[in-house]
Amino acid sequence: MKIGLFGGAMQKRGETADSKGYDDFVNYVIAADRLGFESVFIVEHHFSGIGQVSASMCMLSYLAGRTTNIRLGTAVMVLPWHNPILLAEQAATVDMVSGGRFDFGIGKGYRDIEFKGFCIPKEEAQARYEETVALMKKAWTAEERFDYHSDNWNFEDILVEPAPIQRPHPPLWTAAGSPDSIIKVAHDGYNLLLDQFGGLELTEARMTNFQNACKDAGRAYDAMEVGLSRTIIVTDSEEETERVFAERAERQKNINQFGKLPGLPDKPVSYDDSSNARDDAYLIGQPKEVIAGLRRLESMGVGYILMTTIGDETLLERVATEILPEFEVAKNAAE
Amino acid sequence: MKIGLFGGAMQKRGETADSKGYDDFVNYVIAADRLGFESVFIVEHHFSGIGQVSASMCMLSYLAGRTTNIRLGTAVMVLPWHNPILLAEQAATVDMVSGGRFDFGIGKGYRDIEFKGFCIPKEEAQARYEETVALMKKAWTAEERFDYHSDNWNFEDILVEPAPIQRPHPPLWTAAGSPDSIIKVAHDGYNLLLDQFGGLELTEARMTNFQNACKDAGRAYDAMEVGLSRTIIVTDSEEETERVFAERAERQKNINQFGKLPGLPDKPVSYDDSSNARDDAYLIGQPKEVIAGLRRLESMGVGYILMTTIGDETLLERVATEILPEFEVAKNAAE
Repeated sequence: MKIGLFGGAMQKRGETADSKGYDDFVNYVIAADRLGFESVFIVEHHFSGIGQVSASMCMLSYLAGRTTNIRLGTAVMVLPWHNPILLAEQAATVDMVSGGRFDFGIGKGYRDIEFKGFCIPKEEAQARYEETVALMKKAWTAEERFDYHSDNWNFEDILVEPAPIQRPHPPLWTAAGSPDSIIKVAHDGYNLLLDQFGGLELTEARMTNFQNACKDAGRAYDAMEVGLSRTIIVTDSEEETERVFAERAERQKNINQFGKLPGLPDKPVSYDDSSNARDDAYLIGQPKEVIAGLRRLESMGVGYILMTTIGDETLLERVATEILPEFEVAKNAAE
Repeated sequence: MKIGLFGGAMQKRGETADSKGYDDFVNYVIAADRLGFESVFIVEHHFSGIGQVSASMCMLSYLAGRTTNIRLGTAVMVLPWHNPILLAEQAATVDMVSGGRFDFGIGKGYRDIEFKGFCIPKEEAQARYEETVALMKKAWTAEERFDYHSDNWNFEDILVEPAPIQRPHPPLWTAAGSPDSIIKVAHDGYNLLLDQFGGLELTEARMTNFQNACKDAGRAYDAMEVGLSRTIIVTDSEEETERVFAERAERQKNINQFGKLPGLPDKPVSYDDSSNARDDAYLIGQPKEVIAGLRRLESMGVGYILMTTIGDETLLERVATEILPEFEVAKNAAE
């Protein structure tokens, strides 16, 4: 079991005079690099008004300069907003400056405020997404100049530089939630990002679906090709666990403020106030409980968790020292 | 007199399996940071086939992570290739991660291969450039959501984040060569980039022109607002000087391979093979000669040189130890 991070800096416009939000995030990633976390995946969002990272490729390039081993990913870059050739150049550059540590998470977008902001009709998202992926792949691999013409983009006599270090291109990751879209990811040869809101039952169904689809596609299943986002919080007592669960449930009421993530049930489990059951999408508890939760995920074929609880260095240290070693030992014993 | 660097990494597609070209450049910039050079300005070019930097904002973000004091600039980003809002976000991000070290050099483009590549008519360059500058300024400073509609770009209900650290925005630099365009730079309130090819006479005319235009515009002339690109090479003997001049003259025959830089005479001095005179655009010679050349430029009001001889760390050390201290002493004595 490997653990990476998923999230992003926040720097609300006008909120502070300096760049504290980003600084905190950068220091957090540097600590994660030192502590042996596998990766950090950062979001791309625009016009949010809450200061989410917008120029994600710049942010990753900067992190490449501040870190040594941690892989650097996007989760996800929203392709319809970007000139495919400029984006291919940026991706190759992040890959190059990071020494081949780039994981390229891509998506078609879901927030209404962004479609409106860029004046791109949501109905065009899928087609623009597919067009951009195809064109970027061509840009990364074509060794001769080429032309490209479509309704959206026109290029003539181009050769795209630099080439990425990871050949033929950095791993492509994409978020999927619905059964059909998960099957498509397997067949397209991408790696899969699963959200942090799906509970255990849903996660198991998704994992099984992806593994079967890989089989159908003649693709060997590699557990490091599925990143499952999870909220991990290590507590010291049952009382603390109780309190943290209550806080999370309160917070989660706002998760759809920018639009619903695809593939989730309309009402995630934790929304059901009539139920006293704890939302099993959360890995919240004392170390033994968190480890047990991870073992349960492991039994479904999950081998790669992306921790969404960004920003708390103490938590990071605890996960590194109290959780991760359990899995290192198991791994070493198995070898 | 301050000295910065002007240039950019090169990584020709397929030339080497690794990223050596970029690595060398990065190490060079790190050395320059350590040695007290003022800045590094990097180019943006596309489709060159010789591996020039394309994703310049990513490259600068990475350098921000590897350096401490050196200012990080573009010379120049070509605005017509970019979505103005994405570029404003990138510029603000570079400014933020560098702690306010970003110098934003902007231009309208001049290479035919790039206009062709992006399928943008050269006739539209000036209008697109001006539109982009105006829109970026709005993006950096608007604290309320706004709409924007034109033939080229449409945005609705947007608020652009992050805000740059340097307020209202990072210094804008632009290259100019012709008398009219230099006057426009002064009136627009931008800083001026002068090319490395103009000889002493042309440089003096340009400096006088800019200083007069600043006066006309009611703008105080600040020598740090004009960056004059120069080839600086420190030699150990007259024979070496002779040899280096010959090599440079040979190389310079290819400078216009991608299109003529604006504002230069059709045949720069060094192109005139009938003349035995050394091209006085070059600061090539033994330390005393280079210092004398710089003093002569200083007498024209030049206070900021951008050294174009990128990549030679030995040269960098020599300039830092044998040239720069001369001007530090003078400065300290004057205070």
